[in-house]
Amino acid sequence: MSYFTKRYHPPGTAPGTLVKRKKISARPLLISIIDYDATHLQEVTDATAQQCKLYLSQPTVTWVHVHGHAEPEVLRELGAIFDLHPLAMEDVLNTGQRPKAESYDGQLFAITSLPVFASKAVRTEQISVFAGESYVVSFHEGKNDPFEPIRKRLRKDTGRLRTRKADYLLYALLDIVIDQGFPVLEAFGEQIDSLENALLRNPDKRTLTALHHLKRELLLLRRMLWPQREVLNILLRDEQVPITNETKLYLRDCYDHTIQIMDLIETYRDMTASMLDIYLSSVSNRLNEVMRVLTVIATVFIPPTFVVGVYGMNFDRSVSRWNMPELGWSFGYLFVWSVMALMIGGMLLYVKRKKWF
Amino acid sequence: MSYFTKRYHPPGTAPGTLVKRKKISARPLLISIIDYDATHLQEVTDATAQQCKLYLSQPTVTWVHVHGHAEPEVLRELGAIFDLHPLAMEDVLNTGQRPKAESYDGQLFAITSLPVFASKAVRTEQISVFAGESYVVSFHEGKNDPFEPIRKRLRKDTGRLRTRKADYLLYALLDIVIDQGFPVLEAFGEQIDSLENALLRNPDKRTLTALHHLKRELLLLRRMLWPQREVLNILLRDEQVPITNETKLYLRDCYDHTIQIMDLIETYRDMTASMLDIYLSSVSNRLNEVMRVLTVIATVFIPPTFVVGVYGMNFDRSVSRWNMPELGWSFGYLFVWSVMALMIGGMLLYVKRKKWF
Amino acid sequence: MSYFTKRYHPPGTAPGTLVKRKKISARPLLISIIDYDATHLQEVTDATAQQCKLYLSQPTVTWVHVHGHAEPEVLRELGAIFDLHPLAMEDVLNTGQRPKAESYDGQLFAITSLPVFASKAVRTEQISVFAGESYVVSFHEGKNDPFEPIRKRLRKDTGRLRTRKADYLLYALLDIVIDQGFPVLEAFGEQIDSLENALLRNPDKRTLTALHHLKRELLLLRRMLWPQREVLNILLRDEQVPITNETKLYLRDCYDHTIQIMDLIETYRDMTASMLDIYLSSVSNRLNEVMRVLTVIATVFIPPTFVVGVYGMNFDRSVSRWNMPELGWSFGYLFVWSVMALMIGGMLLYVKRKKWF
Amino acid sequence: MSYFTKRYHPPGTAPGTLVKRKKISARPLLISIIDYDATHLQEVTDATAQQCKLYLSQPTVTWVHVHGHAEPEVLRELGAIFDLHPLAMEDVLNTGQRPKAESYDGQLFAITSLPVFASKAVRTEQISVFAGESYVVSFHEGKNDPFEPIRKRLRKDTGRLRTRKADYLLYALLDIVIDQGFPVLEAFGEQIDSLENALLRNPDKRTLTALHHLKRELLLLRRMLWPQREVLNILLRDEQVPITNETKLYLRDCYDHTIQIMDLIETYRDMTASMLDIYLSSVSNRLNEVMRVLTVIATVFIPPTFVVGVYGMNFDRSVSRWNMPELGWSFGYLFVWSVMALMIGGMLLYVKRKKWF
Amino acid sequence: MSYFTKRYHPPGTAPGTLVKRKKISARPLLISIIDYDATHLQEVTDATAQQCKLYLSQPTVTWVHVHGHAEPEVLRELGAIFDLHPLAMEDVLNTGQRPKAESYDGQLFAITSLPVFASKAVRTEQISVFAGESYVVSFHEGKNDPFEPIRKRLRKDTGRLRTRKADYLLYALLDIVIDQGFPVLEAFGEQIDSLENALLRNPDKRTLTALHHLKRELLLLRRMLWPQREVLNILLRDEQVPITNETKLYLRDCYDHTIQIMDLIETYRDMTASMLDIYLSSVSNRLNEVMRVLTVIATVFIPPTFVVGVYGMNFDRSVSRWNMPELGWSFGYLFVWSVMALMIGGMLLYVKRKKWF
Repeated sequence: MSYFTKRYHPPGTAPGTLVKRKKISARPLLISIIDYDATHLQEVTDATAQQCKLYLSQPTVTWVHVHGHAEPEVLRELGAIFDLHPLAMEDVLNTGQRPKAESYDGQLFAITSLPVFASKAVRTEQISVFAGESYVVSFHEGKNDPFEPIRKRLRKDTGRLRTRKADYLLYALLDIVIDQGFPVLEAFGEQIDSLENALLRNPDKRTLTALHHLKRELLLLRRMLWPQREVLNILLRDEQVPITNETKLYLRDCYDHTIQIMDLIETYRDMTASMLDIYLSSVSNRLNEVMRVLTVIATVFIPPTFVVGVYGMNFDRSVSRWNMPELGWSFGYLFVWSVMALMIGGMLLYVKRKKWF
Repeated sequence: MSYFTKRYHPPGTAPGTLVKRKKISARPLLISIIDYDATHLQEVTDATAQQCKLYLSQPTVTWVHVHGHAEPEVLRELGAIFDLHPLAMEDVLNTGQRPKAESYDGQLFAITSLPVFASKAVRTEQISVFAGESYVVSFHEGKNDPFEPIRKRLRKDTGRLRTRKADYLLYALLDIVIDQGFPVLEAFGEQIDSLENALLRNPDKRTLTALHHLKRELLLLRRMLWPQREVLNILLRDEQVPITNETKLYLRDCYDHTIQIMDLIETYRDMTASMLDIYLSSVSNRLNEVMRVLTVIATVFIPPTFVVGVYGMNFDRSVSRWNMPELGWSFGYLFVWSVMALMIGGMLLYVKRKKWF
Repeated sequence: MSYFTKRYHPPGTAPGTLVKRKKISARPLLISIIDYDATHLQEVTDATAQQCKLYLSQPTVTWVHVHGHAEPEVLRELGAIFDLHPLAMEDVLNTGQRPKAESYDGQLFAITSLPVFASKAVRTEQISVFAGESYVVSFHEGKNDPFEPIRKRLRKDTGRLRTRKADYLLYALLDIVIDQGFPVLEAFGEQIDSLENALLRNPDKRTLTALHHLKRELLLLRRMLWPQREVLNILLRDEQVPITNETKLYLRDCYDHTIQIMDLIETYRDMTASMLDIYLSSVSNRLNEVMRVLTVIATVFIPPTFVVGVYGMNFDRSVSRWNMPELGWSFGYLFVWSVMALMIGGMLLYVKRKKWF
Repeated sequence: MSYFTKRYHPPGTAPGTLVKRKKISARPLLISIIDYDATHLQEVTDATAQQCKLYLSQPTVTWVHVHGHAEPEVLRELGAIFDLHPLAMEDVLNTGQRPKAESYDGQLFAITSLPVFASKAVRTEQISVFAGESYVVSFHEGKNDPFEPIRKRLRKDTGRLRTRKADYLLYALLDIVIDQGFPVLEAFGEQIDSLENALLRNPDKRTLTALHHLKRELLLLRRMLWPQREVLNILLRDEQVPITNETKLYLRDCYDHTIQIMDLIETYRDMTASMLDIYLSSVSNRLNEVMRVLTVIATVFIPPTFVVGVYGMNFDRSVSRWNMPELGWSFGYLFVWSVMALMIGGMLLYVKRKKWF
Repeated sequence: MSYFTKRYHPPGTAPGTLVKRKKISARPLLISIIDYDATHLQEVTDATAQQCKLYLSQPTVTWVHVHGHAEPEVLRELGAIFDLHPLAMEDVLNTGQRPKAESYDGQLFAITSLPVFASKAVRTEQISVFAGESYVVSFHEGKNDPFEPIRKRLRKDTGRLRTRKADYLLYALLDIVIDQGFPVLEAFGEQIDSLENALLRNPDKRTLTALHHLKRELLLLRRMLWPQREVLNILLRDEQVPITNETKLYLRDCYDHTIQIMDLIETYRDMTASMLDIYLSSVSNRLNEVMRVLTVIATVFIPPTFVVGVYGMNFDRSVSRWNMPELGWSFGYLFVWSVMALMIGGMLLYVKRKKWF
């Protein structure tokens, strides 16, 4: 994930302007409609914006899902049909928004972040949802469709989902987006566990890089998931939001999940901080060990090397009897060895007592 | 304790679904019923879900305790008898939940964390409790039953517990779960004390690992115990919660205990952070000491080693009188020794003044 | 940006005093007036303060923009015409103020910070705005005019801007000032990205200096942008503020942007903190590497150097058979080489097992 | 002070149970009674619980102070006479409680922490106070009696204390307990000052240990004093608390003192954190100095040592004229000295320019 | 500034007691009175407490300023005249109080901190102010009088100050005290700037000491200035405080200044924290450089020194042809030089590739 993922218009652009952007995904735009009530269900895949109009007029719940790269024209068409606010549509187009929830005259608009774990990295995809009394319009630009389980549940004509109104569908969509956090964080937990083992056993530069990447991803993930708590808070507390008390019971469960996810992210962050301390301590410990060996070797061998140097000097013993008389002693050589043995022994003793060895 | 201990359904599963999980404990499911009022008490161990029905209809307080690995079928049966909310039952099944309290139409549902200290590690076990006016249903999946003292107090026909209603029993259960924090934290306190002594006396790599484990356990413990304060807050403040003012007086005491536990955990966390600093300082101090010894040895012996090397050279004195005339001096050897003595003495003095020695 | 950028009067000066300051920009003062409603628009560039009076009396919206170094006299004239509060005018003159919003009897006064990214450094410029029912007076001392896009949108006689009152113009000005944060933070994000790469690949002293400058700029930027959230909060929540509900919908969008900007700054700050840790770790890692090489060389060569020193001694073998008999052995030389080969080999093995090599 | 100082019953004990504890202080229990109003005062030292009953019935203010190790029986007797709540009595018995204030039907119960500085260490002692309309019952288990000044002020028949009711006596007791924080923190401030001087002049291992002990004591002191702010807040704000407005004026002063004490503790904590940084920097600085000296010595002497080694080799000059012809040069010795002088000089210059010397 | 600057009575002293303190400033007590309304002004320097009584009875505004070491008797006299609360007078006497504001039956009492920058150190002086409807009594124990500008403004018979009541005078006094923060913080900003330059260029031990002193002073300054925000908050929000709405407009400006000052202090604190990191990094960097040089020298010269040692051995070549045959080779000397050149060259190459050189 990059640090700056938000798309924005140049400052000064009129608010609500929908500008054509550079295509970022090759995936073509796909509108799918599911229209249902307790007794019947109709499904249109690859629909046009105009087809939505038909279903909207009926008392059934209509779910329009726009998957892929949304073109400004399609957005404008949908905006006209469902009476979407231009500021909200701008946020749909400019993905990378912070999750938020707003209500415009009885219509609810929510932006959420879908965490996706792919190829050892995590990223978030924006999912935008509009909800009225009898319709839900959702937008998603990412690769894989997270809402397939909802479709399966809808197709079965039993279950709570079919008998409730659009607000329960909205809950179901939010619930699936938020719960995607659990498998992602489970994967993170395993990464941290294995990194921790590596750290305590044999830390090297790669461990440090991995740790830094982990911290970075947790930071960015937190930035995108933290505001979801607020989104649910608004849905639960705001009096203007058109959600029944029964659905609120379920949203409360969803709210608990956002808190659990934040708890996990905070715990992970604390843990990575502690792991960096361990890394630094390990590096210091190793340096200590290296230096102890160097010092032991130097301490033991440098002094006797000086001694043998002394008796390697070439002073002319024939000139005076003061010049290196030791060289002429019968036991000079043995004497020097004894001196050196004492030196080495003393140093080893000293070093042993210091517990460097 | 692992970082990710929560169990969850795959995202998109219908809320309230009870899925059969892999058995995690060999311990068989055991339902025990205690039905009592001030004058009589009846106890059934190893009961079936259906037996609960019988006692529920009576005005006495009925306490159903489900110990061990709860099967979905049993949960469904109990759910039908006591009218338990499917979302709550899902949380009972998927252990590892964050402590929380909710009220569903006069029925109270609370999840708490029981800290257990076993084999030098701490873990938490989920205890879920439903409480109505005349019944309490509690679930616990762990090994040892923490509620035996309550049973003993119930069997004695004196004491407050027998004369009060179900809300007081709920308090007694919460109280015992929360107070388990004290012996666990006492044990932690002793660990920190001994680790601190080790640190100030003779820190090594094992101290660091122990410190890291301590930090980790405190972090995870805090995550599971912190929300219990909120649980008690809800029981005390929420107007919808069916608890008498008299019992609230006792719950307030319980609430104080959660605060004391958090206080202790925070103090411990601060202390372990400070201990890591001490560890790092100690490592640096030792490195300093090692390097000082190396430097003293090198500083004292390397320069005279150079000097003796000079007079070990083989320049041909017969060729010219400029070639090493010192070798022919009568007191050349003594002169060189004097020079070296001065060198060594000077260096020792320098090193002494720097307080490296 | 400097740490202390606020201008202030000597303590004890009467509040609202307008003192002539040392000129800080060579740019001459330029007053421009745009007077508009849905049907007509009049533009005066290089106007005088007195000309404003004319337009003020009309029901159209009058936007007076004062660009450049504001002289006390001009301020006093404008103050008299638009009835500006002396304390507010003092803040206009003494630039470097913290962003804030206040209302004086139906007149709104807001100070905002325009972030400007120039020559690899960021700075903020103060933009002060007064808004009444039918006029907006804005002051800006910086170099480049950020409001040109607004003028362009005004000149086109379509668009929301022309049909709304002065509060919408105020929103448009604030929006442009706040949105300037996005390109600035995008540039920061790229700097952090490239610095991060440098850090993980080849950190040196310049990386450290760059990191410090980044931290410093983020800190100062945060100080000047953080209060803007509060500015918008006041405009949205304060009951006395004369802003219509429809414009508030747009200001809410603007408020979201201030939150997103703060989110980004906080993320960047966390990231730079983590990067400093990486830098310190890298420096430690390198020291370790250097010391390992030194230790390997010293460990391998110092002991055999002692050995060869021994056999370089000149003890007189003719005096006694105890003086260096090895020199007379037939295989003495080979024997010494074998001893040294064993020494070197043993040390290399030791060093290899320690993974220092 | 130890990390875990709280005494607690085994979890599951019925609330309000008073269990006989191991005696911790040799000091015998001493009950003293002072009964007074504006005109008369009666004092009983070494009273029995039953004697209190007598004074309670009179309209005068009765102050019962229980000093020393409180036995469960005495507590039960007093509890019956003054109608003390069992949960409160449990907290009196199990000392080491967090300061708190509660009101039970018009009776006030407060626990406070008395900081005591003895033999270079700080500890806190629990002081528990019950206050009704015309009585105050206080408990203190520590060694020295902090309330002697109050007794002296009471014995003088002038002064505010004698003319007011029990709530003012409660204030006087709290005031003395809280104000004990000032001399303790003054002593701490002096310790920090002297430690700071030691740090900047000549830091060693003892400085580090002292710093750690200081941090630890501040942490524990903070834990025990911080909640006192909340105690006073409850006395000031809680509507149920039976305290007159006039006494509240004095309690507000007391509240300010708790804030000042917290301010000081926080400042001290910040300071000790900064001091640890200084310590670490000093250790690094010293290591640098040591290493610089080592490097200078090694850099200056190792290269010429190599050179003299070269001319100590014994190649047979008689075999060929390529074998060490320098040895036969007339000025060979001087030449080598010149080479070495250049080497040493160059190195010294290099080292000088690096400012290592 | 010292850590503990608060003066306090021994715990247990009756509240409101005024005890004679050791004189701390040689400056004699000086009472000055200014009595004014819009039309006339009367000034008495070196007045007595009794003179104040005279002016108090008139409807004009009376400002009594007590400069210097306040004696208990004078305080008692003034207390009797202006009906000052004993607790407040105790706080006036015991300087070093935390800034606070309180109202006693229509009389306002405020304590503020005047930051003074003298001889490269900062300290704060307590200024205490009582304000009634028609009088202000202020106390200041410091050296220089900060209120001279107010007197000058009063003496001029134009200006807002003369036409307003005592609450505006109170504002003027507070304003001057708070605004003294700006020059002090400007001086700090310059210190930080120059310290930062020193750090990035050539950090040494003095830089560290300077940094520590800066942190310490900022910490103590923050402790004394932070509560001033609360003081102004009370004056602005508290309903009981006798301040007109018009003056509140000015106090709001003053409140903004306290926030700006806190903003600056926080920024400075963050900056000094970052600078310490830079310092530690620089120290590490330097150690690295030193060690690299040592390692290069050792790596290049130690191995050839061993080689020349080998050929300095004295094995008896005449005994066997296995004893050092190289010494008899015609090109032995050149061969050894080649070997050493290869060794040195290889090491230099290795060291170059590692970028240590």
